[in-house]
Order: sequence, then structure tokens, then C-alpha cells
Amino acid sequence: MKIVYIVPGKMEADEAARRERILRSWADAQTYVELAVAANGPRSIECMYEEYLSIPGAVEVAMRKEEEGFDAAILGCGGDPGLDAIRELTTRMLVLGPGETSFHIAAMLGHRFGVLKTNGDRFFSSVELAFRAGVSEKLAEVIGVDIPVLEMQKSRGKIIETVVQAAGRAIREKHVDALAIGCMTMAFMEVDRELGNALGIPVVNPAKAALKLAEALLNCGLMHSKRAFPQPVKLRTGLASSYRELYVHE
Amino acid sequence: MKIVYIVPGKMEADEAARRERILRSWADAQTYVELAVAANGPRSIECMYEEYLSIPGAVEVAMRKEEEGFDAAILGCGGDPGLDAIRELTTRMLVLGPGETSFHIAAMLGHRFGVLKTNGDRFFSSVELAFRAGVSEKLAEVIGVDIPVLEMQKSRGKIIETVVQAAGRAIREKHVDALAIGCMTMAFMEVDRELGNALGIPVVNPAKAALKLAEALLNCGLMHSKRAFPQPVKLRTGLASSYRELYVHE
Amino acid sequence: MKIVYIVPGKMEADEAARRERILRSWADAQTYVELAVAANGPRSIECMYEEYLSIPGAVEVAMRKEEEGFDAAILGCGGDPGLDAIRELTTRMLVLGPGETSFHIAAMLGHRFGVLKTNGDRFFSSVELAFRAGVSEKLAEVIGVDIPVLEMQKSRGKIIETVVQAAGRAIREKHVDALAIGCMTMAFMEVDRELGNALGIPVVNPAKAALKLAEALLNCGLMHSKRAFPQPVKLRTGLASSYRELYVHE
Amino acid sequence: MKIVYIVPGKMEADEAARRERILRSWADAQTYVELAVAANGPRSIECMYEEYLSIPGAVEVAMRKEEEGFDAAILGCGGDPGLDAIRELTTRMLVLGPGETSFHIAAMLGHRFGVLKTNGDRFFSSVELAFRAGVSEKLAEVIGVDIPVLEMQKSRGKIIETVVQAAGRAIREKHVDALAIGCMTMAFMEVDRELGNALGIPVVNPAKAALKLAEALLNCGLMHSKRAFPQPVKLRTGLASSYRELYVHE
Amino acid sequence: MKIVYIVPGKMEADEAARRERILRSWADAQTYVELAVAANGPRSIECMYEEYLSIPGAVEVAMRKEEEGFDAAILGCGGDPGLDAIRELTTRMLVLGPGETSFHIAAMLGHRFGVLKTNGDRFFSSVELAFRAGVSEKLAEVIGVDIPVLEMQKSRGKIIETVVQAAGRAIREKHVDALAIGCMTMAFMEVDRELGNALGIPVVNPAKAALKLAEALLNCGLMHSKRAFPQPVKLRTGLASSYRELYVHE
Amino acid sequence: MKIVYIVPGKMEADEAARRERILRSWADAQTYVELAVAANGPRSIECMYEEYLSIPGAVEVAMRKEEEGFDAAILGCGGDPGLDAIRELTTRMLVLGPGETSFHIAAMLGHRFGVLKTNGDRFFSSVELAFRAGVSEKLAEVIGVDIPVLEMQKSRGKIIETVVQAAGRAIREKHVDALAIGCMTMAFMEVDRELGNALGIPVVNPAKAALKLAEALLNCGLMHSKRAFPQPVKLRTGLASSYRELYVHE
Repeated sequence: MKIVYIVPGKMEADEAARRERILRSWADAQTYVELAVAANGPRSIECMYEEYLSIPGAVEVAMRKEEEGFDAAILGCGGDPGLDAIRELTTRMLVLGPGETSFHIAAMLGHRFGVLKTNGDRFFSSVELAFRAGVSEKLAEVIGVDIPVLEMQKSRGKIIETVVQAAGRAIREKHVDALAIGCMTMAFMEVDRELGNALGIPVVNPAKAALKLAEALLNCGLMHSKRAFPQPVKLRTGLASSYRELYVHE
Repeated sequence: MKIVYIVPGKMEADEAARRERILRSWADAQTYVELAVAANGPRSIECMYEEYLSIPGAVEVAMRKEEEGFDAAILGCGGDPGLDAIRELTTRMLVLGPGETSFHIAAMLGHRFGVLKTNGDRFFSSVELAFRAGVSEKLAEVIGVDIPVLEMQKSRGKIIETVVQAAGRAIREKHVDALAIGCMTMAFMEVDRELGNALGIPVVNPAKAALKLAEALLNCGLMHSKRAFPQPVKLRTGLASSYRELYVHE
Repeated sequence: MKIVYIVPGKMEADEAARRERILRSWADAQTYVELAVAANGPRSIECMYEEYLSIPGAVEVAMRKEEEGFDAAILGCGGDPGLDAIRELTTRMLVLGPGETSFHIAAMLGHRFGVLKTNGDRFFSSVELAFRAGVSEKLAEVIGVDIPVLEMQKSRGKIIETVVQAAGRAIREKHVDALAIGCMTMAFMEVDRELGNALGIPVVNPAKAALKLAEALLNCGLMHSKRAFPQPVKLRTGLASSYRELYVHE
Repeated sequence: MKIVYIVPGKMEADEAARRERILRSWADAQTYVELAVAANGPRSIECMYEEYLSIPGAVEVAMRKEEEGFDAAILGCGGDPGLDAIRELTTRMLVLGPGETSFHIAAMLGHRFGVLKTNGDRFFSSVELAFRAGVSEKLAEVIGVDIPVLEMQKSRGKIIETVVQAAGRAIREKHVDALAIGCMTMAFMEVDRELGNALGIPVVNPAKAALKLAEALLNCGLMHSKRAFPQPVKLRTGLASSYRELYVHE
Repeated sequence: MKIVYIVPGKMEADEAARRERILRSWADAQTYVELAVAANGPRSIECMYEEYLSIPGAVEVAMRKEEEGFDAAILGCGGDPGLDAIRELTTRMLVLGPGETSFHIAAMLGHRFGVLKTNGDRFFSSVELAFRAGVSEKLAEVIGVDIPVLEMQKSRGKIIETVVQAAGRAIREKHVDALAIGCMTMAFMEVDRELGNALGIPVVNPAKAALKLAEALLNCGLMHSKRAFPQPVKLRTGLASSYRELYVHE
Repeated sequence: MKIVYIVPGKMEADEAARRERILRSWADAQTYVELAVAANGPRSIECMYEEYLSIPGAVEVAMRKEEEGFDAAILGCGGDPGLDAIRELTTRMLVLGPGETSFHIAAMLGHRFGVLKTNGDRFFSSVELAFRAGVSEKLAEVIGVDIPVLEMQKSRGKIIETVVQAAGRAIREKHVDALAIGCMTMAFMEVDRELGNALGIPVVNPAKAALKLAEALLNCGLMHSKRAFPQPVKLRTGLASSYRELYVHE
């Protein structure tokens, strides 16, 4: 089975290679995982505009990989930007977002979950994501680490400390009993086990969870519902012959 | 007061001029309305991917118009694509989406509203929009006209007939007592009054409603909340000096 | 266009004239606004019983003004007492409540709003109002100023101070990012701009918002839904020939 | 224990005596029940305006009966008009509404309940009542009998037939498994047992249920929460010395 | 009328006799109350497993008492374990759970209620119970006394003190205005009146409330809905001739 | 990794062996799966009482398998009876229910899901399960096959036909776009692929989904939250030294 992990934005080749190695270490023996970086996009995704900017690049990778015969794609951003669009366009390839996936897993394992975000001021994007996933009843807290994404990797200690304190309060005061990491940089720093041990609750790594879920769903023969994510009407009716024609340049 | 109506996609100059004339006929005497078509984007917006494709073009217009001193912008699509992103980026200019605006007005005037969409199979995008607006408790039905956007203008009779039948059923069976038009092409065909008379319930024209609400809110000195839609972190911290730097080309 | 602002209770002639002047300063050039004080009612509305006591007086004004050809009525109390009854009885005149209207506007501009009330112990009446409006998902906090209505005008400084402190806490702890003023006395003290500047979030003046929305909706040709607010059955079937006959004196 | 059943509107002496006899046949041996008709009010309650018109008369009876030492009052209308106001004003006497009470009992006995109303077009008033009661999750259908209240008593057969048909459909299609009668005229026609046998589900008589609940709660030493329904601020602070002073005549 | 109070677990004969005496002191003159202890079960119910362990013993008592002609059964545990199962199996006898009953009564008397539990860490079982009852909108807080059930009776002072403090905070911070006791040991210590006086809000004794509600509902001729709690399919179709055959021993 | 699939009730050795073979065919190469039948329990689970009867037997198997070093247990019934109890008692072994797991997967793949049940009259048990899982917003329909569990295996054709018809209607009328099978007998008949092809939407096999999810979560190092499912207080405080002591025989 072939799974592509799409980086929906720019990434240094070194970091991309490092993440691909980690993904491969997580994969099943019979899974081939490839990490593909979008040709264009934002440097990191920390606001709604950057979420949207990342979509055309991610779509392009997804469509190419579907043609190449990949079985599943993981949209590598905690906000799942454009997940619905990619699911509309693909016809044979399962597409998962780490955001919705990790929310569901956190919801499976406890009664109330919290989400770790880079910026606490974007709490509503997590509320919306939980609504789209269908688990908003269980989302109890959004915890902001408030460290810029591009400075995260050098701040492991500070992240752990901040999260342990903030999540500890959410556990005591808001019944939080599971945590989903909402940022891929934190995911690939693999802080989940360390946080889980410190806090005594499950902490879901969204990148790993999405990969393992993709394998599990493919093994179940399942794909996202094309009834829920129907093919764009212009493609269905022949007004456009490819997703590329949906966009008109000046 | 200066208000720009942004067409987030391609539009023939004739049709753009026609819509601008209609907008001006709706505006207050002291309001200057301008219709601005995005430089790039989709031909029409009938799927999630087209929604996302429209955002960068709309942002560009919005940012330019804010610089030119416009007081408000209306994002001219029934799905409000990227409304949150534009609200994050603007700092002085009120931004309204016709979708959320018309949902609120329908909710103000009745107990349960329905939404008219071009495609009935995209019901969930209306559910999401209602959730973002905060009025999902009152959304009772999504009615699909199921006529391609680009063929609508020649199908006035068929639209009226289809809607009167489908909305009539929603009125009888689902307590629908108000209707929001969810498509700008129908809005500029000004079918609202005709439908309202035939159905005996308020039918909200989203283009007109957004324009009149923009005027009303400006007169109240109100803008969208910058606490709810905070400036992107890279702009706030100086990592980027303009929204344009948020996107990185190959 | 002619709009009546109904004071549903007793008011000194001086204060009534002052409020009418303010309303006229807010109105469009082509709008004629009149303030009409009910013949009987409570001195101020600070409990549910006073809300109900205000209704017959307000209905009487509304019915007279509809007969006189007014286009819209604003029910001048933050709790919208009897809004549904007046909407049932009127057949041509749009009726708006400043409570529901300001809740919708606050919900349009942010993700979570708070309401300013004179008494904090009446939080549930705001919850009910938000439910009727259909925006209860976005109501996050009810803030009590806890100053009797009849002493408010001499307490401007104390009001500002109390609200800034309490709303500041709601902003930090409950994601509040917009505020609706729930009391008409505060509305006509025009504290909204001052509070907005101090708090950095939109603060909706319900009196002004209702007036500007009435103008906007009339310009859109919209009235409240008579399907949602049907004519009383005794009037419809001829058992009574006027709303006055619905009440039977000893 | 002394319980007053308040008729919040006009009623013929014969019918009042008949209802009092029925109430007494329902009461415990040690309960004294009295039916008291308000001095002024509507002839029947079939719209929101009539609901509000009934409140001052009902309050007056309630306050007098509290002074006379009654232990509980039942507000004799299926819509519970002014229940909150009467609960605010009383300080020692339990006040129950047959509407909320019967909704709770229907919710106790099944998973989804329906409400029988005289007019089907007033569905939202039941939705609001269920919200106030806190059981809106279980309200699945509002069934309109669509017979004017004043003609009901001569239409027993037609009522049974209409309800059996409409409720049968709600049972099959909307999982309705319990019914609350939402109209006191139907309650005193004692159609509940007949309907229950025909439909095979519990049918709650709101008048009887409210009486038996009042006895039960008094025996438990319980009264409505004065924290939830606080004394009006003008009475609390001495600005008014009686509820009568809250209303100001011209 | 004959009502059985089922102790779904082991209980010393002395304590059982004491509780039966209290129940009889609460009952109406014409009610015969019997307390019946299950033959097998847990010593007390403080976790989900103990809830489930109690069910077969409780079912056995219920079925025997139904055969003996009892009119109602009260399932004597605050968590209502197996209430749905007993309601499925019984065909003529009303079955009430003190948990759901007291939640409904608390919801009838105020806007937001809290629940007293022995262990605060089991908050979700109260959330679930409120959902089953249909009143989860009004559940605002779960307060843990955190004293083992078997040590409660000697800790009256500590319970009162703990609850007054914790409930006082819930009243101030979470709008709690009524309290339901969620533990039968506390119920039979009759701490409700003392707590109610100290806190100034209604405190519902679930044992007493369930008994008085059972009397009230029987007087109304009401039973739980057999449509909601249908007879097990094996009994309905004759695959089993008694509930005892549903269980197969090795 | 070692996973046990617990049959919480009686099962013929042949059928048990057949199901174990199917489970092994689904498992990863490095997974050891064992099917263990409870010593006592119901013959099949078709009512709430049978759900509860199955719990002690399932707990016994789970506790023994945890001691034997198994990594995960799947509670083999679509209703997940006692999932919370088993999660409370286990301390190192992940426990999953096919019901909640398949609901989450259906919710991940579409916007609105339906559940296939043996008896349509038990719709509320699916509603409760969806609530516990946290996905009740997405549950749109419960479809009853209405064939007794013990006769299912000989009724493949009838099942397919019934479901295709009923689910087809749910797809058209209630926006259902994914299906979860709610019965393990249907799961081991592997009707999911056939139904999926006929209906054009994902159909989740709960047995397979639970197995693949167990593997995925174990690979992620995740277990259910012990904060959400805390150890029973008697075990925690030493009042009991084993779960067996929680039950007291006569």
C-alpha cells in the first residue's frame, strides 16, 4: 500500500527528509510512505490565510499522487486546510486530515479532549474543525503554546513546560482527559509520549495517528464518502475536463 | 462611505457592469459602491475547491481597497469563502459575507430558515456556514435548484418553479418560515421579491442584504472583531512585512 | 420611511425628547423617526414581571402606528418583551427588538459574545433571548453591571469601570470577542464607543443597531415572517374583530 | 396542604365549578384545592398576545393566594404564560406550570415526546417552552389539533380521531413514544386515558400532572429556586413596596 | 398502591430496616412501601462495574414484585443502573430511577442544576444520565464529595461542609440554582433540608423525590412508555419464555 | 502484539472458530488475535437486559487476558456493553468497542451516518452510544433490519435487500452518506463490501474496524484514558483486592 504525506507549503529539504524518515519508521512493513512537498505555498500555517494559501499546492500533489496510484494521502497540517476540496477531487484515493483524525482518536479514548495549538488566539479554528469532524461535544479546551512555528524546534523544553502547566489546569478544571496535538511541527518533534507520561492522559500525535489510520482504513477497504464529497459539478458535467481548468488566470 | 463588492472569480465585463448598476440602485445616496473583479480565480463557485481558489484573488482586492480608503467590503459569494482570512488581514475595513449576513437576517425574521443552493448535494457547506455564523439551530433545510450557475440567467422561470415547489414542501413539513438565497447569480436576478410573494415568507437577497447591512454597521461605527480575527502572527511579529510575503513561490 | 421607537413603559417627557433627538441624529436623511411612550406600563424593566407589564402598552402604540402608516417599529427594551406578540398582531409593519438585533450583530462580528445587563442575576433571560434569536451557541457570558436602571445616568464612570473589568475577564477567560449592550438606558448614554475603545472589541448599541437594521431591512423589502408569527386565530376566524377584544375586563 | 389552580383568563362560572370538581377528584384526601379565576384576561389563550394578557390577572390571584397561606399554585394554561414572573414575585409558595411539568413527565417516561396543541402553526412556542424546561432534546413533534379552543368541548370525537392519526404518524416516523397535552381544555375533557389506550404510549394530562406534582414537591419540602427566580430588584431595594407599584397608570 | 424500593446490592438488615422506616414516613397514608434487598450484588455502587453488577439482582426483585402485584418500583441507586432493562422487562409496573427523577425535578425548579456525587472523578456518568433523562442542557456542575460510600454515615459534618463550600462556588461561578443529590446514602441521611437552608437553593432528595413521583404518576395512571422500552425480542417472539432464560450458564 | 476479541455471551464452538479465522485473516502479520468466549452470558444481545447480562462474563475474560499480557481487547458486541466498566478495570490493556469505533470511522468519512441495527425499535440505544462516543451530531438515522440475530446467517439476501432499500431512502431524505453496521453477526457475514457497492457510500464493518484500530492505536502507543475511566475506588483504596470482590454472593 502506498501513502503520500503532503506538506502543504514550503519546507527545507533536510527537514522534509527528516520527517519522511520518521514517517517510514512509523509505517507498517508493507506500506510505502513518501513525503511530498507542495511546489508553492506558505512557509508555515499559522493563520486562516496561510491555510487557504496552502490548498492549491496540496491539491496538485494529491491529484498527481492519485494518478501515480497512491492509495491514501495525508494532508500534513493540523488544521486540515482544504480537506473537503481534496476529497471532492479525488476519486480512488483515501484522504485524511491529521486534525480530524486526531480529534476522533482523542474522543475515542476519553470523555473530554483538549487541543494543543501554536497560537491560543485561534481557538475558533479548532472549534470549527471539531464541528466538521462531528466531535464538538467533546472538545473542552484549546491550549495555546504561543511559540511561533518556525522557532518551535529549538524550544522543546519550553513547550513541554508550558503544555504540562496549561494542560494540567485543563485536566483539573475542565475535565480534560485526552489531548490532541494540533501542530505538525510538534508532532514531528515526537513530544506526545513525553507529555503523555507527564500528564497521565493519552496525547495523540496527529501525524502518526493519521498514518496508522490510513493504513487501518485501507485495510478495511474504506475511502471517504463520495456522496459527502461529490465530484465538482463542472467536472461531472464536462464543463471542465480537469481540476486545473477550474482556475482561470488573467 | 465607500463600499467595495468583490467578485471573487472571473466575470464578463458586461455582467460586472450590470451587477454594479444594481448595487448602486440599492445603495444609499451617500454611499459610493464599486464592484471589483478579482484578477484570477474560478469562473463560478460550485464546489469547495472553487471556493478556496477564489480566496487569494479576493484578498488582493480587499487589501488594495482597504489601502484606497474603502470603509467596507462585501465578499461576493454565497459561501463566504475566506471571510475569516480577509477579516484577519484587514485592520480598518469592515468585511461582510453575504452568506452569514443573509442567514442572520433570515434568523431574525422567523424561527426556521431554509437556504437555496445551486447544488443540493452540497448541503453540508450550508450547515458549516450556519455553524460559523452561530445560527445552526435555525437552519432547517437546504434546497438545491440543481441548475449549473453558468446557465442560471436563462432559467428564471424554471428556478422560480423549482423553488416554489421545494420551498413549499419545506414550509409544510419542516416549519421553514424564511428563506436565504445562497447564490449570487440568483441574487442579481432579483428573484427574491417574486419568490417571497409566491411563498408568503421573507426571502433574503444576500447581495442586497450584505450591502444594506454594511451601510448599517458602518453607521453604527462597527467593524468585525479583531479579537476574533487577529492579525496573522507573522505580520504581528514582523516575520513578514506584507500579506504577500505569506505565500512563497517556487 | 417612517419608524417608531416604542418606549414600553413610563418615561419623563424630557428624557423621551432627549432620546428622540438621539434617534433622529442616528437616522438616515430620508427616515422619519418618532419616539412614542406607552400610555401605561412599568417605570423601568428590571424583572420578568415588568417585561410582561410593558406589553399591552407597547402593543397599543404599535397597532396605532401601523394604522398611521409607519413602516417599522422598534420595541425599545433590551429584553424584547412581547416581540412575538407584536409581530403576530401587525400585518404590514416590520417589528424589531433591540435585544435580538444586537445579539445577531454581535454574532456576525465575532465568535463569542457577551451581554451587558443591569442585573447579573437575570442571566437566564439573556439565554432565552439568545435561544429565540437562534444564536445561543455564540453567547458566552452575561455581565451584570448591578446598578439600578433609574440610577444609571448618574453613574457613567462606574459603569465604564465595572464593564471594562468584567468584560476584560470574559475576554481573557471565555473567548468573548464582541459585546451587546442589553439595556436601553446604557444604549442612550452612548457608552458603546467608549467601551469598544477600552476593550478592543465591537460593542453593539442596541438602540442604534435596531434603528439602522430597520432601515436596512425596509430597504430590502423585508418584514418579519407572518408564517412564523401568524395572526391570532380569533382575529383570523372573525371571533374577534380587533386585538382589543382579546382582553376581557371584569 | 392548600393548592390554588389559577385560571389566567375569563371563564364561565359553570365551567369553573366543573373544573374545580375535577381537580378535587384528583387531589389527595389531605389536599385542599381551589380554582380561582382571574378578574381580567383573555377568553382563551391561543396566541402569544393572549398569553401575555393573562399574566397580570394571574399574578394578582397568585399574590393574594400566597398571602392567604396557600402552599402551591398551578398556572392553568398549557403555555405557562408568566410562570417566571410569578415565581419571581412569590416568596413562600411553590408555583408550577402544567406545560413544563407535563414536558418533564413525558420526558421521564420515554425517549422522544410530542405535544398536542390547539394550533399547529404555533409550534415554536412549544419549542421555547421545552427550552425553558430544559428538555428540548426530547421534543420531537408538535401536533396541531386545529380546532378553536372555544369549540373543543363539543368536538371530542374529532379530537380523538385527529390526534390518533397525527400521533400515530409521529410514533412511526419520528420515534415519538410519549405525548404531553398542551391545552387545558383538552386536559379537563380527560381525553388522556382514551388517547393513551388508542396509541399505546403514555399521554400526560397537564392539569392532573401539575396537581399531583405540586403535592409531591410540597411533600418533599421543595419550592422553585429563588436563586433562579430572584425577587424583582425594585422590591428588593425598597423602590417599590408591593408588586402593584411596578405598574404605573397614566 | 404498593411500591417497592429495590436495593440493588447488599445491605445490612439494620440499615435496610432503617431505610424502610424512612420510606414509610415519607409515603402517603394509602401507599404501602416495601424495601427489598437484592439477593446478590455489590456492597455499594461507586464505579461503572458495580453499577452493572447490580442489575441482575435488581431485575430479579423487580420481576418478582411485579408478579406480586406491586404498582411501582424505585431502583434505589443514584446512577439508575439498568433502569432501561427493568423498564423493558416489566409490563404493568411503573419503574423510576431516583437519578433521572431528581434531575428532572431540579430542572423543573431552576435554570441550572448541580449534582452531588460521592466521587468527583465520575463526572461523565452524571453527564450520561442527564442525557438519557433529556435534561443535559441544564446540568452545570458535578460536585464530588470524595468520601467512600461505606464511610459516609459517620461523616455528616464533613459532607455538609464540603458541599456547602463546593456548591457555593458553583452557585457563584456557574449559575447553579438547584442541586440533586446523586447518592442514596446521602439521601437516607436526609441532608437535603440542611443543605438547602445553608445554600438557599432547592436540594432534591432522590429517594424521597422518586417515591413521591411514583405516587404522583400512579395517581395519573401513567407508566413508562413500552414503545420506548419495548419487550425483549426473544420474549416477544417466544424464543424465551421468561427473562431468566435470557442468561445461559456454562 | 496480542489482541483478544471477546465474545460477551454464548457461542457455538464452530461459529467461534469461524469468526477467529476471519479475524486472523484481517490481522497484520505481526498481530496475534485470539477469540475468547465468555463462560456465561446471553445467547445473543438484542435488548438492554442482554447487554447488561453480558458484562460480567466479558470482564472476566478481559481481566484474564490482561494478566496474560494481551495488549488490546475488543468487546465483541455492536452496543459496546460495559465498555466503560472494562476500561475502568484494566490498567495496561487498550479496550475498544466496535460500536463507538465504527461510529467514529463513519463520522470521519462523511457528514451524516446511519446505523444498521437488528431491531429498529431500539433506536435510542444507538443515540446513547453516539452520545458516549461524542459523535451524536452526525448520527442521522437508525435502520432496523428486524430479523432476529439467531436467524440472520440464513438471511443474507433478505438483509442486503432490506438495507439497500432502507438506506437508500436515508441517503435521499436524510443526507446519510456513510453507514456503520451495528451488529456483529452482520459484521462476520462480511456484508459491508456488498452493501457499500450497492449503495455507493462507505459501510463500516465494526469487527474489522475495531481490530484495525486496535492495531493502529497500539502502534501509536495509545490506551484509553485512565483519567476518563479511573480505577474503581474500592480497588484504589484497598477496600477490595480484586475486581472479583466487588460482587457479593448471598
